[in-house]
Amino acid sequence: MTRLKMSAYLLMLALVLIISGCSTGDKAATADATKTTGLSKDEISNEAFKDLFPLQYNSYQKNKQDTEDTKYSGSVKRSKYDADKEPYLPILFNGYGFATEYNEDRGHIYANEDIRSVKRINDKSIGSCLTCKSTAVPQMIAEMGDGYWGGNFNTDIWPKAESMGHSPIGCSDCHDPETMDLRITRPSFTKAMEAKGVDMSNPTRNEMRSYVCAQCHVEYHFAASNSEVTFPWNNGFKPEEIYEYYEKTAKEKGFEKDFVHNVSGTPIIKAQHPDFETHMEGPHGKAGVSCADCHMPYERSDDKKKISSHWWKSPLKSMDTSCGQCHRDRELDKLKERVIDIQDTHMEALHKAEDISIEAHYYVNKMIVSKISEVKIKKAQEHVRKGQWFWDFVAAESAAGFHNPQGAMSSLKTSVEESNAAIRLATEELVKKGINLDELKGEIEKAKKAVYEEKDNFKKKEHAINSYFPAQQPPPKK
Amino acid sequence: MTRLKMSAYLLMLALVLIISGCSTGDKAATADATKTTGLSKDEISNEAFKDLFPLQYNSYQKNKQDTEDTKYSGSVKRSKYDADKEPYLPILFNGYGFATEYNEDRGHIYANEDIRSVKRINDKSIGSCLTCKSTAVPQMIAEMGDGYWGGNFNTDIWPKAESMGHSPIGCSDCHDPETMDLRITRPSFTKAMEAKGVDMSNPTRNEMRSYVCAQCHVEYHFAASNSEVTFPWNNGFKPEEIYEYYEKTAKEKGFEKDFVHNVSGTPIIKAQHPDFETHMEGPHGKAGVSCADCHMPYERSDDKKKISSHWWKSPLKSMDTSCGQCHRDRELDKLKERVIDIQDTHMEALHKAEDISIEAHYYVNKMIVSKISEVKIKKAQEHVRKGQWFWDFVAAESAAGFHNPQGAMSSLKTSVEESNAAIRLATEELVKKGINLDELKGEIEKAKKAVYEEKDNFKKKEHAINSYFPAQQPPPKK
Repeated sequence: MTRLKMSAYLLMLALVLIISGCSTGDKAATADATKTTGLSKDEISNEAFKDLFPLQYNSYQKNKQDTEDTKYSGSVKRSKYDADKEPYLPILFNGYGFATEYNEDRGHIYANEDIRSVKRINDKSIGSCLTCKSTAVPQMIAEMGDGYWGGNFNTDIWPKAESMGHSPIGCSDCHDPETMDLRITRPSFTKAMEAKGVDMSNPTRNEMRSYVCAQCHVEYHFAASNSEVTFPWNNGFKPEEIYEYYEKTAKEKGFEKDFVHNVSGTPIIKAQHPDFETHMEGPHGKAGVSCADCHMPYERSDDKKKISSHWWKSPLKSMDTSCGQCHRDRELDKLKERVIDIQDTHMEALHKAEDISIEAHYYVNKMIVSKISEVKIKKAQEHVRKGQWFWDFVAAESAAGFHNPQGAMSSLKTSVEESNAAIRLATEELVKKGINLDELKGEIEKAKKAVYEEKDNFKKKEHAINSYFPAQQPPPKK
Repeated sequence: MTRLKMSAYLLMLALVLIISGCSTGDKAATADATKTTGLSKDEISNEAFKDLFPLQYNSYQKNKQDTEDTKYSGSVKRSKYDADKEPYLPILFNGYGFATEYNEDRGHIYANEDIRSVKRINDKSIGSCLTCKSTAVPQMIAEMGDGYWGGNFNTDIWPKAESMGHSPIGCSDCHDPETMDLRITRPSFTKAMEAKGVDMSNPTRNEMRSYVCAQCHVEYHFAASNSEVTFPWNNGFKPEEIYEYYEKTAKEKGFEKDFVHNVSGTPIIKAQHPDFETHMEGPHGKAGVSCADCHMPYERSDDKKKISSHWWKSPLKSMDTSCGQCHRDRELDKLKERVIDIQDTHMEALHKAEDISIEAHYYVNKMIVSKISEVKIKKAQEHVRKGQWFWDFVAAESAAGFHNPQGAMSSLKTSVEESNAAIRLATEELVKKGINLDELKGEIEKAKKAVYEEKDNFKKKEHAINSYFPAQQPPPKK
């Protein structure tokens, strides 16, 4: 590749990657580019882009070095169950793979490494689990159809992706290798948007600056029929709209739950990072701000060239270029204080809702062992299911409430209402049966204390979770 | 007054009343004005300002004609208890004057008329009730001291205000008649800000554009010792901080409640329109936007002169000049949709919290008539008190959640937690006593239905409220 050729490509890229800033321009996403990169349209290796786009490539490499946490999040690999962060979380996932290992997510560059090492991946895991972790996936889906979604992760899917020369989340996931236009590579996203009634034929460039992220940073489940990664958006993006989808549409198609809870026997839906949905319903999303506006602010290379950062991180770490571009009249320190204030308010509410949800599981456990009528137990479990959903939708989201402060708080309010409805129902039935609730409350405290004390040892923690309350489901298979 | 003189005053006024727009300028509030109006510093009649400031005067006169409601509020005189709006509200104020008559607030210009005619004002009412309704109040406080706050409204305070030639909320409440500088005339505000730790010696003009409103659009109570209008801000503006003030500081000074609830016997604090507090903790307040920026946008007179509107109303009625000044890049229709969406989310949550709060009162009533232990009843009442406070703080506020969408929702979440805590406690004790809760739930439904059906007749409504649940307090004196 000659220097001249490279310069031409860089110029083209500069045009394509124009910084949107605060504009909500509705230009068509596809630039009328006559030049091409010379790469194959099927290129999936990040290395192939390295010499053509060294600035972006170097920016991407910075995803390795993100070592400093923000107050509530970060890209350092550590257990979500750290006692000083979320000590009681394993109780809520007891009975599911997430209870075996659940880590703070690291940068895109670690996607391959982390999916391979997490304990949730085992001999039974399927291809769908790789969908957002490898650049080989789009071609595999195209070639294998349902054979991809349901294929065995360890024996079929991973070896095939490796043999194809894939990269972790990378260039070709969001860019057409020939033109560098933004593009959608995961069909689940397009299908779901169309099912929601969005015209996907000609998205604007500004929309694409969110859509490429929304291929993965969303809530999903594996369809009952073929294990296809499916986004539950037919009714809308709000947690209540998605819950309605799960209660009706998904159930009709045979999907009822992600797991049965080990303490309360409740069929639970595990929420997955609904970042896009939450953002779209919040103040920035409604104002037409895209994901990239805040998470890919401009950065300058050593020779002063301006590019969109490919080091994805919290905008709290780039306030000037992320927030300051639109909020020009605000002092950045004050603005940061405001963000943290919103997150503090949110996280306090989150932990309260979490506590009540845990309590509800134990109350229903007591209903089961006390042989309360099936009908009453089922009704209580319905409330527990909702209580955990409306909490988890917010807990699994990545912005600690910032993407939609009111909406997230509304979800937590619903969670609290539902968990309390379960406890009220259980209280009534248990006292009728002569159960001493003071004893029950004491047992719950003991169980939580035991879980807290075994924070560093998952096996012992699992024992602690179940030692006071007999499991209502066999422990998850390892 | 000559034309020349008038023009000079208008010029000066134009300088003083410069539109702040999106700036958060920290200029000192007091202009270095050498010119004066020629009015006495003690002038309290709106009419005296009429010829000097005809544009503002005419603008103020428009407060008469505000007849169209926004979706959730408005300035039309009607009962807050309209069956299609808040049919069950009287249940929550049962035992207090607010249950006798509680209207949507009309414009400032009606302040005298409406305070005189509302049923809450009776032979026992005191001077404090007039504090925000008459321009005579500042001089009366200065002259009479505590004799003003505790003076008899009907026999002493009102006749005195009339004899002084007062106006309803008017020019001299916010402006120094000699210089037209913005000024604080209600000492309660300055005292409370200083108690909160705010330096009040030299407020900026931008701050004053909120402070003049915050003399009245706030939460307050009448101090136990001298009935002085007192703002509970020592710990901060948030509902939990104000609640803490009431539980500690106010109680130590002898103030414990506004009334005892007729259904549950709970000592209740009635929240009063905490608009300023809510705004200051919300996104616009934190961004340094003042009350006047949105509620007093510029308007043009027939001869194209630009003034700050003195027709106070919802910014939803002046989106272009109120919202469009800062949100220049947004389509106003979309922006309005967004406001209504926030308000819809809020109001749905508000009504849910209201329902649970009502339920909690009835459960505690049942505890009392079932002779549950005093200790348990007291504990349940504490939860009911908190449940109603965190609901009412938001319900009494004027923006249907818009002033602080996350904070208001957080308050409703706390309300729901507390009301549920009361119901859980009651459930446990009542079932232990062998009470059939299905019957109780049926009675609650019947009571609510009866209240709904008697929407147009307060007497019958009061009977309906108490017919299913024996009153725990004598009905309020009329």
